[in-house]
Amino acid sequence: MSLRRRKISVIGSGFTGATAALMIAQKELGDVVIVDIPDMEGPAKGKALDMLEASPIQGFDTRIIGTADYAETADSDIVIVTAGIARKPGMSRDDLVSTNADIMKSVAGEIKKHAPDAIIIVLSNPVDAMTYTIYKETGFPKERVIGQSGILDTGRFRTFIAQELNVSVKDVTGFVLGGHGDEMVPLIRYSSVGGIPVEKLISKERLDTIVERTRKGGGEIVSLLGSGSAYYAPGAALTVMVEAILKDQRRVLPAIAYLDGEYGYSDLYLGIPVILGGNGIEKIIELDLTDDEKAALDKSADSVSKVLNMIH
Amino acid sequence: MSLRRRKISVIGSGFTGATAALMIAQKELGDVVIVDIPDMEGPAKGKALDMLEASPIQGFDTRIIGTADYAETADSDIVIVTAGIARKPGMSRDDLVSTNADIMKSVAGEIKKHAPDAIIIVLSNPVDAMTYTIYKETGFPKERVIGQSGILDTGRFRTFIAQELNVSVKDVTGFVLGGHGDEMVPLIRYSSVGGIPVEKLISKERLDTIVERTRKGGGEIVSLLGSGSAYYAPGAALTVMVEAILKDQRRVLPAIAYLDGEYGYSDLYLGIPVILGGNGIEKIIELDLTDDEKAALDKSADSVSKVLNMIH
Amino acid sequence: MSLRRRKISVIGSGFTGATAALMIAQKELGDVVIVDIPDMEGPAKGKALDMLEASPIQGFDTRIIGTADYAETADSDIVIVTAGIARKPGMSRDDLVSTNADIMKSVAGEIKKHAPDAIIIVLSNPVDAMTYTIYKETGFPKERVIGQSGILDTGRFRTFIAQELNVSVKDVTGFVLGGHGDEMVPLIRYSSVGGIPVEKLISKERLDTIVERTRKGGGEIVSLLGSGSAYYAPGAALTVMVEAILKDQRRVLPAIAYLDGEYGYSDLYLGIPVILGGNGIEKIIELDLTDDEKAALDKSADSVSKVLNMIH
Amino acid sequence: MSLRRRKISVIGSGFTGATAALMIAQKELGDVVIVDIPDMEGPAKGKALDMLEASPIQGFDTRIIGTADYAETADSDIVIVTAGIARKPGMSRDDLVSTNADIMKSVAGEIKKHAPDAIIIVLSNPVDAMTYTIYKETGFPKERVIGQSGILDTGRFRTFIAQELNVSVKDVTGFVLGGHGDEMVPLIRYSSVGGIPVEKLISKERLDTIVERTRKGGGEIVSLLGSGSAYYAPGAALTVMVEAILKDQRRVLPAIAYLDGEYGYSDLYLGIPVILGGNGIEKIIELDLTDDEKAALDKSADSVSKVLNMIH
Repeated sequence: MSLRRRKISVIGSGFTGATAALMIAQKELGDVVIVDIPDMEGPAKGKALDMLEASPIQGFDTRIIGTADYAETADSDIVIVTAGIARKPGMSRDDLVSTNADIMKSVAGEIKKHAPDAIIIVLSNPVDAMTYTIYKETGFPKERVIGQSGILDTGRFRTFIAQELNVSVKDVTGFVLGGHGDEMVPLIRYSSVGGIPVEKLISKERLDTIVERTRKGGGEIVSLLGSGSAYYAPGAALTVMVEAILKDQRRVLPAIAYLDGEYGYSDLYLGIPVILGGNGIEKIIELDLTDDEKAALDKSADSVSKVLNMIH
Repeated sequence: MSLRRRKISVIGSGFTGATAALMIAQKELGDVVIVDIPDMEGPAKGKALDMLEASPIQGFDTRIIGTADYAETADSDIVIVTAGIARKPGMSRDDLVSTNADIMKSVAGEIKKHAPDAIIIVLSNPVDAMTYTIYKETGFPKERVIGQSGILDTGRFRTFIAQELNVSVKDVTGFVLGGHGDEMVPLIRYSSVGGIPVEKLISKERLDTIVERTRKGGGEIVSLLGSGSAYYAPGAALTVMVEAILKDQRRVLPAIAYLDGEYGYSDLYLGIPVILGGNGIEKIIELDLTDDEKAALDKSADSVSKVLNMIH
Repeated sequence: MSLRRRKISVIGSGFTGATAALMIAQKELGDVVIVDIPDMEGPAKGKALDMLEASPIQGFDTRIIGTADYAETADSDIVIVTAGIARKPGMSRDDLVSTNADIMKSVAGEIKKHAPDAIIIVLSNPVDAMTYTIYKETGFPKERVIGQSGILDTGRFRTFIAQELNVSVKDVTGFVLGGHGDEMVPLIRYSSVGGIPVEKLISKERLDTIVERTRKGGGEIVSLLGSGSAYYAPGAALTVMVEAILKDQRRVLPAIAYLDGEYGYSDLYLGIPVILGGNGIEKIIELDLTDDEKAALDKSADSVSKVLNMIH
Repeated sequence: MSLRRRKISVIGSGFTGATAALMIAQKELGDVVIVDIPDMEGPAKGKALDMLEASPIQGFDTRIIGTADYAETADSDIVIVTAGIARKPGMSRDDLVSTNADIMKSVAGEIKKHAPDAIIIVLSNPVDAMTYTIYKETGFPKERVIGQSGILDTGRFRTFIAQELNVSVKDVTGFVLGGHGDEMVPLIRYSSVGGIPVEKLISKERLDTIVERTRKGGGEIVSLLGSGSAYYAPGAALTVMVEAILKDQRRVLPAIAYLDGEYGYSDLYLGIPVILGGNGIEKIIELDLTDDEKAALDKSADSVSKVLNMIH
């Protein structure tokens, strides 16, 4: 029997990686290893130490280290991948995809070598394609390679609904399918407030505005920040997934999962509802879609395929 | 400006009252005063002291006292009423109602005297009638006298749904109207798992069984315990209401509220969805009901009226 | 690799066992199995179900069952033993010890059979002797059989110190050696408030009174309750030990540990400071004692030995 | 009676201010207003919105806004001041002090106007002098203007002690007097592990090294990060103070308080142990110091006075 401490490695010490590390540590889900490239080892170590020094003050108890040495990730239970560059002015989308795909290949090799039993959660952009790349490069079973986008998207949607009605976010649920951002397919009829469908509480016009704001939610933050992109809500979304897996909670959440015939798609990563537990993706939940919803999902899948074709 | 500590008084030091007190203290929602009759002052003091001695161990920080002196409840922000006798073998329902109504009258007088600005949450049985009695006897505004039943009922429903599907309780929502137990009107179409309506995930037969089990949920616990009735889930339900009010969360929850025309009823306390916040009942949410649902709610309202007629 | 859910079994569904089960579940430390004898299977099941129904309301996510079948404890990570009778009026101390020792033997056999790798935490009274009995009967390594008393005793001490000074319990530490209750050896010089020794803040007379009240702390609750004994603070103390072990926290806490020469005693269970982690007792911390402290500890050890001689 | 939501305003939307805002929101201590200068209004709004979008995901429930308009801070219960520039290469210490003192004057004027009843917590550097400046400029009573440094310093010390002994940070206490960083006066004899004085567990040489590392703790993070300074542990330290005040916890903590004869100093802000509660500084705890400790504290006080003389 083993009561060893759980280990979560976070690849990429940028704001999202660091925020996820903090939130995972606050919940005492296990020990945290923040990994970055040698050039960024200082910041990785500095953020890890700063978090560790917060631990007696906040009352959480975990080990957190920063490193450039993947050997420290040995036998991780979970590896989170936030590495990759952000799109810079003047950079083509193809260049972004190609650069980040190369980074994924390198990261995948390290994970395969050091943490062959880990469950991998990918956040790097474009997330559907990067998750696929990690899946192919590691050769891990499909249930152990998962992408994040829907928890963040529904988090934003829930925030805006709660504001609209001036009620607690705790009582608002949301539901999305498909890709991140513009490719998002919100299922309004599956969103509710205290169980009451939002359509009964908010006019169609206002709902359309809220859906549109959700789609552009990442851009709204980028534009406000001036430089960089959102990290608090993305870090929180990663933490929910880590907790669901490490505690084998079997939560019903949106995730980017490998489709092998489900929803009529194959060999593709796409956002759909899953049961998330100790084995990673425990089950993909298939829903009946309206024609409109299916058409929107097709468009989303098509867009993901196009990006994949650039790489593979 | 005042940063005084919040105060929550719990009338009745039985298992439910004590469990609510513990959970409120664990969440550091404020100082807790457990009140009982002089004959039960010892147990009230003993439980309070035992909880207080748990506080450095669990790391929560609040003052908890037991007393038979209502003066200690002075200026409570919230008063929870769990006092009253349980139905004993051979006791008629009328006797139960009459005895507890007398207890409510006495309690109402004390609250009016010592905590005239408090928000009152009633759990004593039969809860719809006892909440009405407290309302009439205190003369408090209707938004400040509230009964609990729906949070408990949906808690049980959510538990059974989660078990049926082997998923996390965190992702299951439920929705009920009307009275407690047999009078409960579940709105299955407003219950969902990760946003997905339960009707799409569970067969009608199984859902009927689960609804029936929920209706009889209190009795199931009574029968297992052999003596006494449930207190963990009821205590948790009370704590949710206290938190929603003290933090002004504006949560969308089922509660027993005074109806003044809403849903077609007047001068009646009945379980319906509300927004619960810093003023107590911030708003009653009116829903369109199907004919079946309206008929079931009428039956529930009728049953409550009959009990009221015994007392008033 | 295994991400299986952790399992904690609680033997005895009385108030302390049930309270520990609740607190363990609230912290989502793992799944909980409450075991009692066939005659008490109903209450065990009833309390477990009531707690489970509280889980969606409080937002914790764990499985809790009650049972009379030890097979359900299979592969528990931790087993807590709260079984045993309380001393009744007219019962001799010898009869109590003898009855509970027999219960321990039966429980030990079941644990050995069903959960051979578990770490065992004993609360049954008299706790030093009952822990020893479990140790002998299971034949488990000494680091995996541990008794609780010091966390509870210091919890009470800290409560009284905080009250005396009107400060937060969070900033008060306490320290005891030796047996529970009257046999307790408080090391006042190791107790502090925000780091400041209590002796600098409270007069010797008041400290003596507080120490005496701590010694009689269990009796104070018994006397207030009228029937039964404390369970909130004892349940909290057990939960701290479970958390320290399951999260491998390596906490520095008082515990009843098997002494094999430490402090000059052998083949004896006695309360001393330990490091508590994933392997159970990771280390026994030996302190230099003053002559007075050593004499008091000798007396405590002698008292434990006498009880042991009745049984073994 | 008022159950209005508590309001905490954070002046400065940099990493420390934002981290404090996040942690305050996570604990649902009240609504949070992040204020920055008009040029930084975008980032203030962006960070606030990102946090708000994390709230349904993490399950906390609070309102968070970013603004450049101090009117939004109206009636704040607490105002945290993190504004100010960091020392840049080539900048003299005098220039830093002078620039930040001017910023404090401006901030003080706004607080006085919009939140005249607030308790103010200052983190801006050099913190002893900046707290004094805020005190003088607002004219607030001394108990309502407080500086932070000791919680952070002891947090670091506790982290290093826990690492040295490989035990939980939860069981390590630390104690410092005097200024921040080099001026810190650690009282080793008041630091303990599970109640046991650290001097009994760690050699003098190692303790000296740990004290020295603590003194240079801020610099260690700066040097690792490459640009910027620590924010996780400082944000956590601020949050502890906010919680102690809003919940009137009467915690015994180190804080930078106005001395009016205590410890032999007058008209000076210096780090000393206090009781922190609903009125801010409830009490200053005076300790007997050894000659060495008093000499070190004199040096620290002298250093603070020198900085004050630059400004006032």
